[in-house]
Amino acid sequence: MEKIVLTLFAALGFVPALVQQAAAQVDPLPSWNDGAAKKSIIEFVARVTKKGGADFVPPAERIAVFDNDGTLWAEQPFYFQGLFVFDRVHALAPQHPDWKDKQPFKAVLDNDMKTLAAAGQHGLVELVMATHAGMTTEEFELTVKDWLATARHPKFKRAYTDLVYQPMLELLSYLRANVFKTYIVSGGGIEFVRTFSEKVYGIPPEQVIGSSILTKFEVRNGRPVLVREPKLDFIDDKEGKPVGINKFIGRRPIAAFGNSDGDFQMLEWVTAGTGPRFGLIIHHDDAEREFAYDRVSAAGKLDRGLDEAPKRGWTLVSMKNDWKRVFAFEKK
Amino acid sequence: MEKIVLTLFAALGFVPALVQQAAAQVDPLPSWNDGAAKKSIIEFVARVTKKGGADFVPPAERIAVFDNDGTLWAEQPFYFQGLFVFDRVHALAPQHPDWKDKQPFKAVLDNDMKTLAAAGQHGLVELVMATHAGMTTEEFELTVKDWLATARHPKFKRAYTDLVYQPMLELLSYLRANVFKTYIVSGGGIEFVRTFSEKVYGIPPEQVIGSSILTKFEVRNGRPVLVREPKLDFIDDKEGKPVGINKFIGRRPIAAFGNSDGDFQMLEWVTAGTGPRFGLIIHHDDAEREFAYDRVSAAGKLDRGLDEAPKRGWTLVSMKNDWKRVFAFEKK
Repeated sequence: MEKIVLTLFAALGFVPALVQQAAAQVDPLPSWNDGAAKKSIIEFVARVTKKGGADFVPPAERIAVFDNDGTLWAEQPFYFQGLFVFDRVHALAPQHPDWKDKQPFKAVLDNDMKTLAAAGQHGLVELVMATHAGMTTEEFELTVKDWLATARHPKFKRAYTDLVYQPMLELLSYLRANVFKTYIVSGGGIEFVRTFSEKVYGIPPEQVIGSSILTKFEVRNGRPVLVREPKLDFIDDKEGKPVGINKFIGRRPIAAFGNSDGDFQMLEWVTAGTGPRFGLIIHHDDAEREFAYDRVSAAGKLDRGLDEAPKRGWTLVSMKNDWKRVFAFEKK
Repeated sequence: MEKIVLTLFAALGFVPALVQQAAAQVDPLPSWNDGAAKKSIIEFVARVTKKGGADFVPPAERIAVFDNDGTLWAEQPFYFQGLFVFDRVHALAPQHPDWKDKQPFKAVLDNDMKTLAAAGQHGLVELVMATHAGMTTEEFELTVKDWLATARHPKFKRAYTDLVYQPMLELLSYLRANVFKTYIVSGGGIEFVRTFSEKVYGIPPEQVIGSSILTKFEVRNGRPVLVREPKLDFIDDKEGKPVGINKFIGRRPIAAFGNSDGDFQMLEWVTAGTGPRFGLIIHHDDAEREFAYDRVSAAGKLDRGLDEAPKRGWTLVSMKNDWKRVFAFEKK
């Protein structure tokens, strides 16, 4: 009973001395090595939650936004949703005999990544429309869930949802225990990420922001449905991220977490607000446990952020040095 | 202490027998007359919150959506945001000398409502763009707040935010006390409604869905801002309401509250889901305390909903008969 009451107090933002003492004794981020990155996180959380402190932030304003690809789960050899697209093209090919001779579909069916890369953004959008539209939202959700349950990552031979970063799961829990509301702000598809965000990250669908295509309300045989249309609605990347956050949340978060230049404007906008602010960029520099890439990667390119993080006061995380382990499935 | 602990339990969805007893003794909807409408609300809430009951709904799925104009606050003689537009045209006219001879601006400046009505939807959009775009999101917020603080309703001579329906405020509180998450789904502008939703309804900005224009990220003198552009982004009305709900929330609410045919598809989609569902339409039939209008009104037209509510099992509320009082400022 004592414990339940204390938990309830904490959930509502009251942190009695007893709870604070207990918290000090248990490491909330056990998969993080002691160092400047971990220290910066813990000091920020202590600052904004200290009642009566100069930097206290009321619980309702404790909003933290997280990029998904490369920040919460891996994104190599290519964005996982991109791999889903390729798998769907293969699966749907029998119903589209013309794809055998039609680019960019032919490149996918031939596993010809060079031609595919040459098709660029335009080619990718065409593939997305062919695989993400033309069905109801419910049908799309089932297709994604089925893929996530069966597809395996080419390097790790595991489900994609196993490739989430253990240190980031701990960080999400730590922030929520300190009455932060945690959001995903992904360049990936909003309805794609929502199929697993609650189960994998503890983030409910209404706290997921992402790119979208248009949907249309229809009544089919007396039953109302939402049909996904092959038209872009919103690209939640780069300059789009602050726009998406403002649209969905309507106030500026106080902390932002990313890993690529696609997150630059989100960090820039979040950390430009008044009062205490926190920005963090994850640097993928661990070829052994995960992947090493930054300035020239096709997925998750990090160039400007690497140069500007120090002078903007953003924490730069080295996966190799700051994380005790990357994935939960690693041997400790 | 006892009371705090019970409140905390309730907030997390535990409702011990003691609290249930206490709740049974206090009327949660004192401004509602006893009758079929009030009974239907209370029975629905009891059904979905009864632990172990066949219709129990977990707290995370207890989402209720409310139209704003005509459902939470008044909408006559015209949508309040429309009246804001007209006031802004008057205020900005000195900077736009051409408006004196240019429709639809001239009609507003001449208070010529007949010409304005003839300009239709297209004319209204032009007025909205001229008054809602070309500034940062922060500048727009200040303009709306200033207007709400000073403008007065033509009939009631009160601030527009006084014209919220007391029975609906009680309903919002009652649902939240039963661990519902309450959302606004308005045909009005999302950034307009967000300026007062938290203070007036207890609904935070991230739980407001509405119509929007595009915003653009810009860095001005080293400071990142979001600039409102004169381009439509989304119309959150009629077929747009289920689309907006799906986009922002990502799951289907279990209860929907509206007052006009603009809310029809929202109620249709919400009540077509599996499990217990609740739909309610407010009928403005009280010319004495508020306004009486339905099938032929320029704002809040209710025609199809009036015909179909009974056969669809939606509760139809008569403001005249079901509400003890309409506004908080009325003498009891």
